[in-house]
Amino acid sequence: MTEQHTLNADDIRIFSGNSNPELAADIAKWLGVSLQPTTIKRFTNDNLYVQLGASVRSRSVFIIQSLTPPVNDHLMELLMMLDIARSASAKQVHAVIPYFSFARSDKKDAPRISITARLVADLLQTAGATHVMTMVLHSPQVHGFFSVPADPLTSRGVFQQYFRQQDLGGAVVVAPDIGSAKSAARFARDLGGLPVAAGNKERVSDTQVVINGIIGNQLHGCKRAIIYDDEIATGGSMLELTRILLREGIPDIQLVCTHGLFTNNALDRLGALPEIKAIVTTDTIYHPVATRHPKLVVVPVGHVFGDAIRRNYLGESIGDLFVFGSADGDK
Amino acid sequence: MTEQHTLNADDIRIFSGNSNPELAADIAKWLGVSLQPTTIKRFTNDNLYVQLGASVRSRSVFIIQSLTPPVNDHLMELLMMLDIARSASAKQVHAVIPYFSFARSDKKDAPRISITARLVADLLQTAGATHVMTMVLHSPQVHGFFSVPADPLTSRGVFQQYFRQQDLGGAVVVAPDIGSAKSAARFARDLGGLPVAAGNKERVSDTQVVINGIIGNQLHGCKRAIIYDDEIATGGSMLELTRILLREGIPDIQLVCTHGLFTNNALDRLGALPEIKAIVTTDTIYHPVATRHPKLVVVPVGHVFGDAIRRNYLGESIGDLFVFGSADGDK
Amino acid sequence: MTEQHTLNADDIRIFSGNSNPELAADIAKWLGVSLQPTTIKRFTNDNLYVQLGASVRSRSVFIIQSLTPPVNDHLMELLMMLDIARSASAKQVHAVIPYFSFARSDKKDAPRISITARLVADLLQTAGATHVMTMVLHSPQVHGFFSVPADPLTSRGVFQQYFRQQDLGGAVVVAPDIGSAKSAARFARDLGGLPVAAGNKERVSDTQVVINGIIGNQLHGCKRAIIYDDEIATGGSMLELTRILLREGIPDIQLVCTHGLFTNNALDRLGALPEIKAIVTTDTIYHPVATRHPKLVVVPVGHVFGDAIRRNYLGESIGDLFVFGSADGDK
Amino acid sequence: MTEQHTLNADDIRIFSGNSNPELAADIAKWLGVSLQPTTIKRFTNDNLYVQLGASVRSRSVFIIQSLTPPVNDHLMELLMMLDIARSASAKQVHAVIPYFSFARSDKKDAPRISITARLVADLLQTAGATHVMTMVLHSPQVHGFFSVPADPLTSRGVFQQYFRQQDLGGAVVVAPDIGSAKSAARFARDLGGLPVAAGNKERVSDTQVVINGIIGNQLHGCKRAIIYDDEIATGGSMLELTRILLREGIPDIQLVCTHGLFTNNALDRLGALPEIKAIVTTDTIYHPVATRHPKLVVVPVGHVFGDAIRRNYLGESIGDLFVFGSADGDK
Amino acid sequence: MTEQHTLNADDIRIFSGNSNPELAADIAKWLGVSLQPTTIKRFTNDNLYVQLGASVRSRSVFIIQSLTPPVNDHLMELLMMLDIARSASAKQVHAVIPYFSFARSDKKDAPRISITARLVADLLQTAGATHVMTMVLHSPQVHGFFSVPADPLTSRGVFQQYFRQQDLGGAVVVAPDIGSAKSAARFARDLGGLPVAAGNKERVSDTQVVINGIIGNQLHGCKRAIIYDDEIATGGSMLELTRILLREGIPDIQLVCTHGLFTNNALDRLGALPEIKAIVTTDTIYHPVATRHPKLVVVPVGHVFGDAIRRNYLGESIGDLFVFGSADGDK
Amino acid sequence: MTEQHTLNADDIRIFSGNSNPELAADIAKWLGVSLQPTTIKRFTNDNLYVQLGASVRSRSVFIIQSLTPPVNDHLMELLMMLDIARSASAKQVHAVIPYFSFARSDKKDAPRISITARLVADLLQTAGATHVMTMVLHSPQVHGFFSVPADPLTSRGVFQQYFRQQDLGGAVVVAPDIGSAKSAARFARDLGGLPVAAGNKERVSDTQVVINGIIGNQLHGCKRAIIYDDEIATGGSMLELTRILLREGIPDIQLVCTHGLFTNNALDRLGALPEIKAIVTTDTIYHPVATRHPKLVVVPVGHVFGDAIRRNYLGESIGDLFVFGSADGDK
Repeated sequence: MTEQHTLNADDIRIFSGNSNPELAADIAKWLGVSLQPTTIKRFTNDNLYVQLGASVRSRSVFIIQSLTPPVNDHLMELLMMLDIARSASAKQVHAVIPYFSFARSDKKDAPRISITARLVADLLQTAGATHVMTMVLHSPQVHGFFSVPADPLTSRGVFQQYFRQQDLGGAVVVAPDIGSAKSAARFARDLGGLPVAAGNKERVSDTQVVINGIIGNQLHGCKRAIIYDDEIATGGSMLELTRILLREGIPDIQLVCTHGLFTNNALDRLGALPEIKAIVTTDTIYHPVATRHPKLVVVPVGHVFGDAIRRNYLGESIGDLFVFGSADGDK
Repeated sequence: MTEQHTLNADDIRIFSGNSNPELAADIAKWLGVSLQPTTIKRFTNDNLYVQLGASVRSRSVFIIQSLTPPVNDHLMELLMMLDIARSASAKQVHAVIPYFSFARSDKKDAPRISITARLVADLLQTAGATHVMTMVLHSPQVHGFFSVPADPLTSRGVFQQYFRQQDLGGAVVVAPDIGSAKSAARFARDLGGLPVAAGNKERVSDTQVVINGIIGNQLHGCKRAIIYDDEIATGGSMLELTRILLREGIPDIQLVCTHGLFTNNALDRLGALPEIKAIVTTDTIYHPVATRHPKLVVVPVGHVFGDAIRRNYLGESIGDLFVFGSADGDK
Repeated sequence: MTEQHTLNADDIRIFSGNSNPELAADIAKWLGVSLQPTTIKRFTNDNLYVQLGASVRSRSVFIIQSLTPPVNDHLMELLMMLDIARSASAKQVHAVIPYFSFARSDKKDAPRISITARLVADLLQTAGATHVMTMVLHSPQVHGFFSVPADPLTSRGVFQQYFRQQDLGGAVVVAPDIGSAKSAARFARDLGGLPVAAGNKERVSDTQVVINGIIGNQLHGCKRAIIYDDEIATGGSMLELTRILLREGIPDIQLVCTHGLFTNNALDRLGALPEIKAIVTTDTIYHPVATRHPKLVVVPVGHVFGDAIRRNYLGESIGDLFVFGSADGDK
Repeated sequence: MTEQHTLNADDIRIFSGNSNPELAADIAKWLGVSLQPTTIKRFTNDNLYVQLGASVRSRSVFIIQSLTPPVNDHLMELLMMLDIARSASAKQVHAVIPYFSFARSDKKDAPRISITARLVADLLQTAGATHVMTMVLHSPQVHGFFSVPADPLTSRGVFQQYFRQQDLGGAVVVAPDIGSAKSAARFARDLGGLPVAAGNKERVSDTQVVINGIIGNQLHGCKRAIIYDDEIATGGSMLELTRILLREGIPDIQLVCTHGLFTNNALDRLGALPEIKAIVTTDTIYHPVATRHPKLVVVPVGHVFGDAIRRNYLGESIGDLFVFGSADGDK
Repeated sequence: MTEQHTLNADDIRIFSGNSNPELAADIAKWLGVSLQPTTIKRFTNDNLYVQLGASVRSRSVFIIQSLTPPVNDHLMELLMMLDIARSASAKQVHAVIPYFSFARSDKKDAPRISITARLVADLLQTAGATHVMTMVLHSPQVHGFFSVPADPLTSRGVFQQYFRQQDLGGAVVVAPDIGSAKSAARFARDLGGLPVAAGNKERVSDTQVVINGIIGNQLHGCKRAIIYDDEIATGGSMLELTRILLREGIPDIQLVCTHGLFTNNALDRLGALPEIKAIVTTDTIYHPVATRHPKLVVVPVGHVFGDAIRRNYLGESIGDLFVFGSADGDK
Repeated sequence: MTEQHTLNADDIRIFSGNSNPELAADIAKWLGVSLQPTTIKRFTNDNLYVQLGASVRSRSVFIIQSLTPPVNDHLMELLMMLDIARSASAKQVHAVIPYFSFARSDKKDAPRISITARLVADLLQTAGATHVMTMVLHSPQVHGFFSVPADPLTSRGVFQQYFRQQDLGGAVVVAPDIGSAKSAARFARDLGGLPVAAGNKERVSDTQVVINGIIGNQLHGCKRAIIYDDEIATGGSMLELTRILLREGIPDIQLVCTHGLFTNNALDRLGALPEIKAIVTTDTIYHPVATRHPKLVVVPVGHVFGDAIRRNYLGESIGDLFVFGSADGDK
C-alpha cells in the first residue's frame, strides 16, 4: 500500500444527528477519529436550528443518522446537516443512514401514493449528499433509487458470527413470508446449511397480518427455529409465526432482525412467550443498555460502518461488506 | 374576457395537509371547487403514508399546507403530496404555503448553520412543486430563494379593512424593532398616515430579547398603539414592548401579526394585560373557533389565496394581491 | 364531461420504431388517430438515421417502441425519436414501451454491475421523455426508477378475459418460483379463487435453472395447471416446471406470460410436449400471424394502451388499467 | 499541521478580468503565486474574445473580477473565464467577486422585475463556478441565492484597524438609514463602544433620497461623526446626511464604505465640503493611486482575500474572515 | 383546421429589448398583437433595471432582442427579461434573437478559449428561455448547442424575392471564401442556376484577411457579381474581394449579407467604390431609415419571424421557414 | 516537478469495451498500468450484462470504447461501463472514445431529424462521464456539444511522422471536397508546404456522391497525390476522386484517413486500383493484423491517448496533442 493510502484523521469529519449518537461514537472510535459536536435546537416556531461544531472546509464529511422515530424530525436534521456541510465547502458529503426506514415505501401498491424511498433519495441529493451508506434495505431494488453512489452494507456477517457460537443442531431458519424466503435461505446457508421454511403470510393492513401455516421444508423433528426478517416494528407477524411454530412443537425460538424498532411494547409482548429465548438485533436503531429487555441481544455494527468508511476513504473495495442484491433484504 | 378564460372546476384539484384544513376548505369554497380528500396515516415504523383521494392526471393541483408545529411532520406531508401529484401526471403542482415558517432562517449569522429557507425551497422543487404561493415572508429576499415562480401575498389588505372600522384618533403604529420599521411605516400610511415608532430591541437569544426604549416619533399625546409584526411566537418582545408603551402612558394597545403561533401560552400571558385590548392575526395558522382566546381576533385570508389562485389560473395579474418587496416582511 | 374533454386527433401524433409497428398501428386505430410514418435508415458508418414523418410542434407525441431484440438498436431508435420530438417543440413526449426488458436488471447482485433499468430510465429522460407508459415491470420497485411520471399497465385484465371462456374446473395456478408466487396468487384469485403452487426454483446461471419440486398447495387431484410468469425467454424453467407437473400427474398444462420472447426455439421445445396445450402471451412483443406456432395464443393489448393514452389525454384516472405494486410483476 | 497542508503554488492558477487587476495582483502576491496572463479582446462584431494564458488542467483556479462599471462587460468577461476554466478541466473553479454589485437587486419591490442577484448567482453556476468568494453583500440574505458554496468576507477588520489609529473621543457612528443601523451599531461596538445614530431616510427614486433628521442617540456633544455604509455610488444620501450633521453642529465627518463607486463626480462633490475630512473605502473597486482624490483613503483588502483563499485551499476554517449574517451588509 | 387553432392575441405577450424595437414592432404588427412596453434603466452603480410592462402570467411570452453592439448590454437585458417572464409564471418563454452574434465563437481554435455560443445557449436556458428563434447561424452546428428547442430561420426567401425583380443576365454569385461556398451555391441555385465562385481567403487575424484570387467557375464574361455572406462587420474581406473582381473586369457588384453590422464606417468605405451598386441586408440589425447610406437596401424580415411565431403557436410546421443545415450559414 | 506529480498506477483503472481492446491494451501499456478485465455477456432477453473486473472506488477510471459497428451495442456497453464506474464511487470517470462516429450527425439538414452527436454527448453525461477524450471530430463545432470537458486529440502528428519518411517530391494533397480543404491545406503545410487541391463533390445521398473535377491548384506536373479525409466508410468518394486524378495523369496515389471503417469491401475495391499504393489509417478502429489488406497501413495512436491521459492526470497542458478547431476535422 502506498503512502497516500493512509487514513488522515484531520481530513475526516464525523457528525451525528440525534437518532443514534452511540453508534456514531462507535464508528468514530473504530476509525480513530473524534466525533465532532453538533448543536440541535428548536426555534420558538418549532423550526430546527442545527450547527456543526467543527470546520468542514475541503474535508470528507460523514453525517450519521438513522431514520428512527420521530422519523420526520430525524430526516430534517439529516437534510440540514448535509446542507450545512455542502454549503460550507466540504469536499465530500456522505450520508450514513444505518436504518433507512423509507425503504419500505418502495412501490405504488395503491393509486396516488408516494414511492417515498425514491423521494427521500432525491431529497438527500438536493440537500447535498454525494454518497450514501446504509444497511439492509427492505428490497434490493431500492439501491436503484439513489442518484448518487450508494452502498447498502450487510448485517449477515455479524449475525453469522453471533450464531456460530451456538449449538445449531436441529435448527431451522424460518422466513416470515414467502417474499423473504430467499434471504432466509441465504442466511441458513451461511449457518452451515440449515433447512428453511416460510410463513404463509397475508397482510391485511399495515398493522394486521394473518399467517396460514408454513410453506417449505418439513418442521417436524426440528428442535429450534430462527425466525429471520429485516425489520421488526410491532412484531405482529413474528408473534403469529411463533404461535404456529409452537403448534408444530418447536420449543426453542429465536427472532433475528437487522432493524429492531419494537414499537407498541413489541419486546414485552414477544418476550412474554417463554419459548422465545432471544430477540437478536443490531444497533442500527438505538437500544440503551440500561433499559434493555433481558431477552434482547444487540449485536454491534459500528465496526462494519467504520470499516466501510475506511475502505471508501482509502479506495479499497468494500464488496465483501455488502452482500449483493439477492441477499439480505432481497425479496 | 374570452370564453377560455373561465375557471374550469374539473380542471383543478385542491388538497390539504393536516396543518390547516379549515383554511383549505375556505379557499376551495371561495373558488367553488371541492376540497378533495387526503388520507394521512403512519406506518408502524413511523413513516408517513399519504394518499390523494382523487385523480390529478393533467390537472392543476393545489396542495395547501402551513408549516406550523409540528413543522417537520407538516413539511414531510407537503413534500409527499407534491411528489404524488407530480408522479401521477398533474399538469401543474402548486404548493400553497400560507405560513412558510422557515423564512426566518434566511441568512448565516453563525458559521456552519443552514440557510434553511433556501434548503426547503429546493426540497419543494425536488418534490415536484412548479409554483409556490405564500403570505408575508419574514424578509422579502426569501422570494429569491425559490427556483420556481413564487408569489408571496400580502395580509395588509385584510388588516387595513379591519382597522378602518375603528376610531384611530391618537393612534401610533409601533414596530417591535428597527428592522421592521419600514413595514410598520407602510402599514401606518395605509391607515391614513398614522405616526410610527420602533422598539430599540436587542435579541439576546432565540427566546430572550431586551428592549431599551423607543426610537422615532414621540409617543406622548398618543392614546392608542398598534404594534405590528409579521409573526408572534412566544410573544416575548411584544410583552416587553407593551410594558414600555405602558410606561409611556399609552392605555390602549392592540397587537397585530400575520402569523400567530402563540406558543408557550403567549395568548394567556399577553391577554392578561388589561391594556392589551385585542390581538389581531390571520388564519394562516389555525385557531379553532371553539377555544379561541376572547381577545384574539382572527381575520380570514382564504379569499386572498382563492383570488390569487383564480387569477393565476385565468392568467390575470395578481400584482395587487401582494405588496412588493419593501412591504410587509420587508426588514 | 365538459366539451374540452374530447380527444382532438389533430393534437396527437403517434410514431412507431421498428420493434412492433403492428401494435403501434393497433393503438392508433383504437384511438382513431393515424400512425405517422417514421424513416429509419443507417449511415454507411452504421449510425442510425431517423426522421419523423409529420410535424410535432405543440402536440402530444407518443413514441411506441418495445425493447425487444436487437435491444440496443431498438433503444437507440427510441432515444433518437424522443430527442427529435423534444427538439422539434412537441408539447409532451410520451415514451410508450410495452416491453421494458431492462426491468430485469433492477439490483446489484454482484459488485460493479449496472442497475441498467435505472440507467435506461435516466437516458429516456435525457432524450426528452416527459412521461413513460409500459406494461408489467419485472418488479414493482422499477416504477421508482423513473424520474418522470410512469404508468405501468397490467395485462391481468386481458388474461382474465381470455381464461374466463375456459372450463377451469380442477385447475391450479403455478408460479415458476417462490418470488413470483404473489402475482400468481392474485391471478388465481382473479380466475375465481383457484389454488396456487410454486416451483422451488434455484437459478444456477442466466440460462440454467434447477427446480426441486413444488411448494404450496397440494397438486394431487388437479386436472390442469396454468403456469404464470411475466416473461418467457428460452423457456428453460417453464420446461423444467412442466416436467415436474407431469410427474405429479397433471395432464393439461397452459403457459401464460405477458412478454413472450421465445428465444432459442423456445416455442418448438415447449410445444413439442403434448401436455402443453397452449402458450398464451400478449403482443407487447411482435409475433407475426403468418408464422405463429400453432400452440401460441396472442392476446392483444393495443386497446389497453389506447385506453390509457385516451384517459391520460382527457385527464381521466387510469388507475384501473394498472394493478398496483403488489400485482403482476410483484416479486 | 500535516505535510499535505502546505500551499502548492503549482496547484493554483489565478487570473484577473479587466475590472481590477491591481487587486488581483495583490492577492496573488500575498499568496506567493504568479498572476497568470489573460487576453481579452473584442471581435469586430463586439463579441468578447477571452483566452486564459496558462494551463488550468486539474488545478484550483481563481478568477478575480469585481462587477464594477461597465458592469455587463465585466460580468461577461467573468462568465467566459469561468467557462474556459471549467471546460479546460480545472479541478475547482472559484469566482472571486470582491464587489458583487447585483446584490442590490435582491427582492421584488415592483411587479415583473428581476431579482437579478439570484439570476446572476445562477449564471455563475451555469458558467462553471464551483465556489464564490465576495465581500460585504448588500443584504445577508443574498448569501442564500448561491447554489454553490459562497463565502462573503467582511471589511470590518480592515476598517477597525484603520480607525483604531485615530482619536475617537466624542465620536458617533451614523448609519444613513434605519435599515443599515444594525451594521453601524456593530461597527460602533468594534470601535470600542461608540454611540450610534441613523438618518431618517426616505428613498424617492434610485437617485433621489430625502433625509428627515436623525433617529437614535443624541448627537449634541459629539465632536466627530463616522458615517458608515456598504456602498457609495453618487453619494446623494451621504451629502444630505452630512448636511444634517453639520446643522447639528458636528464639525468633523468621515465617510466609510466598503464599495466606493463614486459615480457622477461624487468625490468632488463630497470632498468640497471642508468638514468632510476623509472618505474611507477599500480597493474592491479600483482607484488608481495617481489620480486619487486627496481626501480619499483606500484601505487594501487583498490580504483578506488571499488569506481566505489560502485557508480554503488548506482546509482551515475561514469563519473569522467573515462576520456572519447580522453583520456588515445586514439590513 | 379546428376552432382552437386560432391565434389568441390575449394569450401572447411580445416585449422588446433595446437592440431593435422597430423589428419587434413589425413582428407584433404582423401578428396583430400589441408590443408591450418594457422599462430599461440603470441604477447608479451601472446595474440594469428592467421591468416588463404587462402581466405575463400563464401566457406565451416572446422576448425579441438582437445581440448587436453593445453586445453584453443587450445580452444582459435579454437574460433579465427572460428571468422576469419565467419567474412571473409565463407559460412559455421564447427568446427571439434575430442576430445571434455569438454563433461565430463556435469552436476552440486556440487553447483555453470559450466556445461562447454554447455558453450563451446555456445562459439563455438558465435565465428561463424554453424555446429560441433566430436567423442564419454562422454554422449549422450551432443549432446543436441549444438544450431547448431552437428554430434557426432562413433569410434566403426574402433575398430571393428581392433579386428576382432584377435582371440577372451574366451574373455570378461569389462566396467570400471556400467555407461559405456551399451557401452561395444554394443561393445561386435559388436565383435560377447562376454560376458560383469563391474567394481564396486566408484570415490573418480577426480584422485582417488576405484574398489570393478566385477559386471555381471562370469569371470572364460575367457582367455582374453578387457577393454573398452571412455577416458583414468591418467589410474588410468584402472590400478585398471586390477589388479582385474589379481586376477581373466585373463592373457591377452587389453585396448581400443577412446580418449587416457595418462597423468602422464599413458602409462609407464600401459605398465609395462606384462599382458597388448596392449593399443588401436585412433588418435583423437595426438601420434607421433616416440615416441610411444611399446604397444600403434593407429587406425586412419581421414577417418571417411573425409567421414562425404564428405557426409555432398554432402547432403548424415551420420547416419551410428555415432551410436546413446545409443552407445559409452552412460552412 | 513536485513529488505529487507522479503517475500513481494504483490510482488509475483502465477498462475496455468490446470495440477495440487492442488499442486499450496499447494505451494501458504506454501508461504502465494494467488493463483491467471487463465481462460483457447477454441475458437471454438480449439485454447486456457488464461487470467491471476491479474496484474503482475513489480512483480515476478510463473507459475506452470506439463507436464502431455494431455502433448501438458499443454505445450501450460504454454507457453501462460509465454508469458502473460512477455508481461504484469512482473519483473521475473518463470516456475515451477514439472514434466518435456520431459526430457526423451534427446538424439538422432536414426537418425532424436528430442532432445525434449532441444527444449522445448528453447520454454520456447522464451515464456518468465527467470528461471525454476523442480524436478528430467530423466538425470542430461538435466540441461544443459536450457539457463535460472534452479533449479532441489530433492524428496529424502521427501522419506527419509517417509521411516524412517518404519522398514527397512532386506530391499534392487533395481534399475530397471543398469542405475539407482547410484540413488538407494544414496537412499539406505540415508536410513542408505541399500544394493542395479539392474535389468538386456533390453528395447525392448517404451512399452516392458525384465528383465533377478538381478545384484549386493545378495538378499537372504532380507525380503523386495524397488524398486526405477524416473518415472512409464505403470509400465511394475516394474511388471517384482517384479516377479523376488518374484521368489527370497522376500515377501514384495514397489515401489517408483517421477513421478507417472500410465497409462494403471498401479495401478490396480501392486496393484493386494499382495506382493506389497505400491506404493509411490509424487504429482508432480495430484492424486485425492477421487479416489486414496488404495495402493497408495502420499508424498506431495508443501513445497519443496514453500521453493525453498521463498529462491530464498530472495536470500538464495537453494543448499540443490536439490541433485546435480549424484543424483536422475542420470543415
